[in-house]
Amino acid sequence: MKFAPYLLAVVLGATCWAQPSQPGPASTNARGAEYPCINGDNSVTFRVKADQAQHVQLLLNFQPVDMTKTADGYWELTTKPLSTGFYYYGVSVDGFSSTDPGSKTVIAANKETNILEVPGPESDFFAAKDVPHGEVRTLWYKSGTTGEYRRIFVYTPPGYDQSKARYPVLYLQHGHGEDEAAWSHQGHENFILDNLLAAGKAKPMIIVNEDGMTGAPLQITPPLKGAPAGKPVANSFMERKYETFDSIISKDLIPFIDANFRSMPDREHRALAGLSMGGGEAFRIALNHPDLFAYLGAFSPALAVADTKTDYDGALADPAKVNKEFKLIWLGIGRQDFLNKPVKQTHEELEKAGINHVWVETDGSHSWTVWRKYLADFAPKLFQ
Amino acid sequence: MKFAPYLLAVVLGATCWAQPSQPGPASTNARGAEYPCINGDNSVTFRVKADQAQHVQLLLNFQPVDMTKTADGYWELTTKPLSTGFYYYGVSVDGFSSTDPGSKTVIAANKETNILEVPGPESDFFAAKDVPHGEVRTLWYKSGTTGEYRRIFVYTPPGYDQSKARYPVLYLQHGHGEDEAAWSHQGHENFILDNLLAAGKAKPMIIVNEDGMTGAPLQITPPLKGAPAGKPVANSFMERKYETFDSIISKDLIPFIDANFRSMPDREHRALAGLSMGGGEAFRIALNHPDLFAYLGAFSPALAVADTKTDYDGALADPAKVNKEFKLIWLGIGRQDFLNKPVKQTHEELEKAGINHVWVETDGSHSWTVWRKYLADFAPKLFQ
Repeated sequence: MKFAPYLLAVVLGATCWAQPSQPGPASTNARGAEYPCINGDNSVTFRVKADQAQHVQLLLNFQPVDMTKTADGYWELTTKPLSTGFYYYGVSVDGFSSTDPGSKTVIAANKETNILEVPGPESDFFAAKDVPHGEVRTLWYKSGTTGEYRRIFVYTPPGYDQSKARYPVLYLQHGHGEDEAAWSHQGHENFILDNLLAAGKAKPMIIVNEDGMTGAPLQITPPLKGAPAGKPVANSFMERKYETFDSIISKDLIPFIDANFRSMPDREHRALAGLSMGGGEAFRIALNHPDLFAYLGAFSPALAVADTKTDYDGALADPAKVNKEFKLIWLGIGRQDFLNKPVKQTHEELEKAGINHVWVETDGSHSWTVWRKYLADFAPKLFQ
Repeated sequence: MKFAPYLLAVVLGATCWAQPSQPGPASTNARGAEYPCINGDNSVTFRVKADQAQHVQLLLNFQPVDMTKTADGYWELTTKPLSTGFYYYGVSVDGFSSTDPGSKTVIAANKETNILEVPGPESDFFAAKDVPHGEVRTLWYKSGTTGEYRRIFVYTPPGYDQSKARYPVLYLQHGHGEDEAAWSHQGHENFILDNLLAAGKAKPMIIVNEDGMTGAPLQITPPLKGAPAGKPVANSFMERKYETFDSIISKDLIPFIDANFRSMPDREHRALAGLSMGGGEAFRIALNHPDLFAYLGAFSPALAVADTKTDYDGALADPAKVNKEFKLIWLGIGRQDFLNKPVKQTHEELEKAGINHVWVETDGSHSWTVWRKYLADFAPKLFQ
């Protein structure tokens, strides 16, 4: 965020700008909001007004940390230096769990959640640069599976409108509690692809984002009166999502995209990938539909393969068939990710069975910091 | 929102569903959130958890009303029956002014703000119906005026991609503290146009939404240490916006749109309109640029004409010239709008000077409920 010169005189006296080598307010701040403030060492100072409150906590990546009351009715917290990348957060005031009005929000954990971008050269690959830019289109289409109008996000590469060419399509899914906007709002898929394309590192492609939360949410909030506190609703989405979402993707969405965009409408030019829950969805749906997909990506996926002969209804039982059908199975996870163990086990079982796949283990936790990098690694391997 | 049958047994015991003739959770709720709950009489029950709080207020349309603590650590409020339409709101907990996690948010008052849609047949004109649908595209372009990449929203009508036709363009602006997403997120411009087009009531057109908050915000939040509380920052955007925004619109945006879309690139096929602050911007910029615009719309605009001979640098001084240049000047305001007096005065001064314009005075306040209706009235009068 840039401040006009006439503002500097006023701003210079404030805490945020008094830090050494200060970058100042985060790029993810609300317009005109001075806090959160990124300090010179990439520690972050949060500051919220709550002048009658007794207990205020910052919920950084959903973990509560007490904030400290200042003399002027604000509550402050300065973190240790944070690594470059993406953070979800919120604020809890006297038991009220909500958001910091100083930052923008996106959908995570099924509700509006603050975002914080800690800057650094590592984020250069998704910066808006002086290169040709694609578009992110919002569309509504009628789903035969659910009977509703569903909103989707579609990235079209630079020059799509001026060209008569047809393009391959990557179907790219978000994680649990997020929605179809996530790969644009949190992931900056458009800038990642724009930059890869400008560098000649990827084939031009269309990217389609659907809402993968097709079952009921895990829990109704606020808790229903009379229902046991914290108990997931029976028959939660975890038991229903695959069949519903499989039908949406295979019967509704792909035909809609192929009818309305200049796509290459065959399996050789179609990929399915996702992160976390979406990685589990992608793995299962692509394996169920080698007729539809030749490329599969699972970023920190919520999945575990223990036995390639029987798991996933036997879709992995014939390694030669899988190797012939899939031009790419990409599997990646962070070393600090709580899902590292089951995903690593999946990699080992695939390897043991002789199922070809790209295995990527990186530094990082269960975070958009990692998933944006995974897209930048995955996309250049598609449609080659 | 639809609940799957297996959820009903759990949900039926809850307050929201115990109301007579209940529509249930609002369409603007977060996924799975039971509250806010629209009751059978269009009263609305709000319910938030804040079990350690002493004082909780609902900020409905930014007006505080005390909520009442319940035995289970929640705070509740049921409004009187509300009229169909759009409401901004927030929640204040022990001096912490933020949002209700039970609802979605959009940008208003320069920060994330809850939205509530009270349903009714009057909202039918912007419902997603079984008609051909256009797209809302998000694009980034480089502004020579500001040197930054600016995000814009562009509605393209149904069939745009399949057609070779060129289309007229409506540049449509939001109000103070909102942003370029407002006419899509709050206004549903796409569904309004889709429905008008399906009924044969409007010409197919492109709509472009820019960010009109081109100066500094009125106030930095939280207040800067050492700065007098509540004092607007010197040289606020009110003194700067016109020249900056005029340059963005006339020198950067219009050339970008005409180079990248199949627009009709002349004044006879270009309109500028806006609401509140955006109505003031539209009025001034269009009058400054009869070379660029032949249609002008001002919805509940922040403007006042006291003397057509001298105001707006004399742009209205020659009524015959204005009447020749502008095919339409549309001016509308609600009877309950706090801006009713200056806008009505503007109408009277235009009338006195013999400047042709459509004057619309309706029921309603300074609200998206009104502005969506104004777009549905204005759009059919364009490009005829």
